Amino acid sequence: MKTKRIAIIGAGPSGLAQMRAFESARSKGEEIPEIVCFERQSNWGGLWNYTWRTGLDENGEPVHSSMYRYLWSNGPKEGLEFADYSFEEHFGKQIASYPPRAVLFDYIEGRVLKAGIRDWIRFNTPVRFVRYNEDDETFTVTAHDQVKDSTYEETFDHVICASGHFTTPNVPHYEGFEEFKGRILHAHDFRDACEFAGKDLLLLGSSYSAEDIGSQCWKYGAKSITTSYRSAPMGFKWPDNWDEVPALVRMEGNIAHFKDGSSRHVDAIILCTGYKHFFNFLPDDLRLKTTNRLATADLYKGVVFINNTKMFYLGMQDQWFTFNMFDAQAWWVRDAIMGKIEVPTDLNVLKADVEERIAREDAGDGDKYAIQYQGDYVKELIAETDYPDFDVQGACEAFFAWKDHKKEDIMAFRNKSYRSVITGTMAPAHHTPWKDALDDSLETYLQNELVKEKEKA
Amino acid sequence: MKTKRIAIIGAGPSGLAQMRAFESARSKGEEIPEIVCFERQSNWGGLWNYTWRTGLDENGEPVHSSMYRYLWSNGPKEGLEFADYSFEEHFGKQIASYPPRAVLFDYIEGRVLKAGIRDWIRFNTPVRFVRYNEDDETFTVTAHDQVKDSTYEETFDHVICASGHFTTPNVPHYEGFEEFKGRILHAHDFRDACEFAGKDLLLLGSSYSAEDIGSQCWKYGAKSITTSYRSAPMGFKWPDNWDEVPALVRMEGNIAHFKDGSSRHVDAIILCTGYKHFFNFLPDDLRLKTTNRLATADLYKGVVFINNTKMFYLGMQDQWFTFNMFDAQAWWVRDAIMGKIEVPTDLNVLKADVEERIAREDAGDGDKYAIQYQGDYVKELIAETDYPDFDVQGACEAFFAWKDHKKEDIMAFRNKSYRSVITGTMAPAHHTPWKDALDDSLETYLQNELVKEKEKA
Repeated sequence: MKTKRIAIIGAGPSGLAQMRAFESARSKGEEIPEIVCFERQSNWGGLWNYTWRTGLDENGEPVHSSMYRYLWSNGPKEGLEFADYSFEEHFGKQIASYPPRAVLFDYIEGRVLKAGIRDWIRFNTPVRFVRYNEDDETFTVTAHDQVKDSTYEETFDHVICASGHFTTPNVPHYEGFEEFKGRILHAHDFRDACEFAGKDLLLLGSSYSAEDIGSQCWKYGAKSITTSYRSAPMGFKWPDNWDEVPALVRMEGNIAHFKDGSSRHVDAIILCTGYKHFFNFLPDDLRLKTTNRLATADLYKGVVFINNTKMFYLGMQDQWFTFNMFDAQAWWVRDAIMGKIEVPTDLNVLKADVEERIAREDAGDGDKYAIQYQGDYVKELIAETDYPDFDVQGACEAFFAWKDHKKEDIMAFRNKSYRSVITGTMAPAHHTPWKDALDDSLETYLQNELVKEKEKA
Repeated sequence: MKTKRIAIIGAGPSGLAQMRAFESARSKGEEIPEIVCFERQSNWGGLWNYTWRTGLDENGEPVHSSMYRYLWSNGPKEGLEFADYSFEEHFGKQIASYPPRAVLFDYIEGRVLKAGIRDWIRFNTPVRFVRYNEDDETFTVTAHDQVKDSTYEETFDHVICASGHFTTPNVPHYEGFEEFKGRILHAHDFRDACEFAGKDLLLLGSSYSAEDIGSQCWKYGAKSITTSYRSAPMGFKWPDNWDEVPALVRMEGNIAHFKDGSSRHVDAIILCTGYKHFFNFLPDDLRLKTTNRLATADLYKGVVFINNTKMFYLGMQDQWFTFNMFDAQAWWVRDAIMGKIEVPTDLNVLKADVEERIAREDAGDGDKYAIQYQGDYVKELIAETDYPDFDVQGACEAFFAWKDHKKEDIMAFRNKSYRSVITGTMAPAHHTPWKDALDDSLETYLQNELVKEKEKA
């Protein structure tokens, strides 16, 4: 029998999880398909592959990553730890609970370096278009090798879309933007908080981007932060120079006017207005169209595209769980492709699965419900594969505690510690409170011993 | 006989010229092919369609335009005037010689509004990919209707690529960019000089972008301008707070180190490092690969793709001449498609044409040679079609004078006036010196009478 060929689009956390899943089967003696991963960036890591670039990259492609310089995990690492590769295994010791990006990148990379799957990836190679061939049930992928500046086509039995959904910004227009005399940028293009030191900053949005980019800018010396919400304020106990105000109505020069009639001067505007699921390389018959929610449209088990069950999507959900959920999905997709899990062929059965998930999401409300809902989804998937079993409920509990810690003090929650559900070890307290830790390099972050030195002093 | 179908990619100055050329034939009673123009922006004008957006646009597509708020033509309008639609016809009077973008946009739009070709354009519709079908010698264009969020394919007999080459930035990396604490942007993303008021600005490059963006920032209050060249300085008599320095070697925090050992503090860096010919919707067999020069690679007569003579490119040259050169090309391509001009089928003949142009460009040097070279090219093309004959040499003379005016005073050349080669009328002096004309709206610019009022006063 001919070896199947699998195309994975994207070598970020989801795509890497998929390759690790196949490699895990191979390491157990199983025969696996041929894997080709198309990655448009020059390195792996997806969102975690930081770049100073904005707009278009060195190859003329849209810059993929929305990462910024001083990003620290905004949830506890105990909620995202790989079940097959703990933080302790990677760093040789337990580390604090909210690692900065360089530390998380190192961790993600450590697992796939160990797995030895880098050769499967074609870097600097965006996928231009994918077509499905009804006659022989294959996919034709048109890719562009940017190094050779050459396009080519190849045929695959399955396509796994792991291109992420935090790349293409949703950018609304407001009256007066054309005449505003400062910088207007989307969170996608935010890089260095220091650019905004001493400035009056307006952030539009009330979700994670507004909360976190505002916090970074506050930490690095913005004069004032104003966050503007459309439905409800975030409601944290903000520092004195941080205000939450209702929706922006219009700009008039550098004066922002809000729905409650208030107005204020701003120097720059950051649009924390979310991202789009965007797949400009897919035709209608293969393209997922969904809002950002826990139960995505049209994905059986959250991964199989119901309009063509040879096509898979990873990580397309709104996310509480991340790396370990991508693993759960990747192991499940691997087994579906390798015939160990049977995917229904009846469209009604596929649709019923999607509808049940949507109804169950819609039935609840609040963050704790959502966390539990997604924890249950992770449990559901890992129960059906050989992905190492772990205490998913313990991870949910870490998220619950995290929510409370944020309510207590939004500028101090990252000083908290949680217990690993993989190794059982408690994370140490970080050596420096987050708000004072201006140097967030990997070298500085990992100096746990600083804590002891400080305790001695 | 079946009506031919023609795809034009892009509704900027080149694409609009192509539509106007066909419409001109139709208005003379000729039977013309069916024209479909694919435009990814929501309005026409290409580069001249200003937007406050940077990076990705409201549809998730790369922002096309590299236009900035206070751009004025950097060459005299007497060098770009349409032979079939003078400035006097459009504005009802002669206007000054260096119009701001809003005035030029109005002029470009006026001609095509009169021609009534807007219905030929599919807005918000990027072309995803084009394939050539050897069997029936047609092109399959895959396009994405962003309004319906739907992709579709259509078949054409010819494709005319008019997508421009000032959209995809060439963005070099320098040591220390990762740690720089200010904004780094390419000229493509430059919008409002006011953002840089009071700042020490570093611009990398020594061509039009560096000269003009530096000048705008100087005019709107930058604290200092430093332009860094790799081969040779621009050599104008710059204002006191403007220095030209050799190549950047590295950044160290906010200190820029240059090749001559000098260094200085900078707040922001603008990369005026040029653009790439970039066609991510074309496969190898249809894709032009050329450097930015007067004699492009692989284009017979500067417009016919020699590897597939059913494929045309407009405006791919390095440009002294613009709108009227696009017209000359568009009229010529129209006649080639309509069978009035015969395109050789022998590849050697096609190549010989390209080589002759390259050799002739390489034989000369200096700007005056280049201007004359491109003027001769325009003369060559219009002699072969019914495009209204005009005094191309007179336009060359305007460019020669412009070069001298820049040498005299780089911050005052835009106060000069030239004679129209279409109507013979001398342009009036503008009512306000460029450096003092902070309001560059169309309404303000067109008040010629202000001159008289000032003269009276």
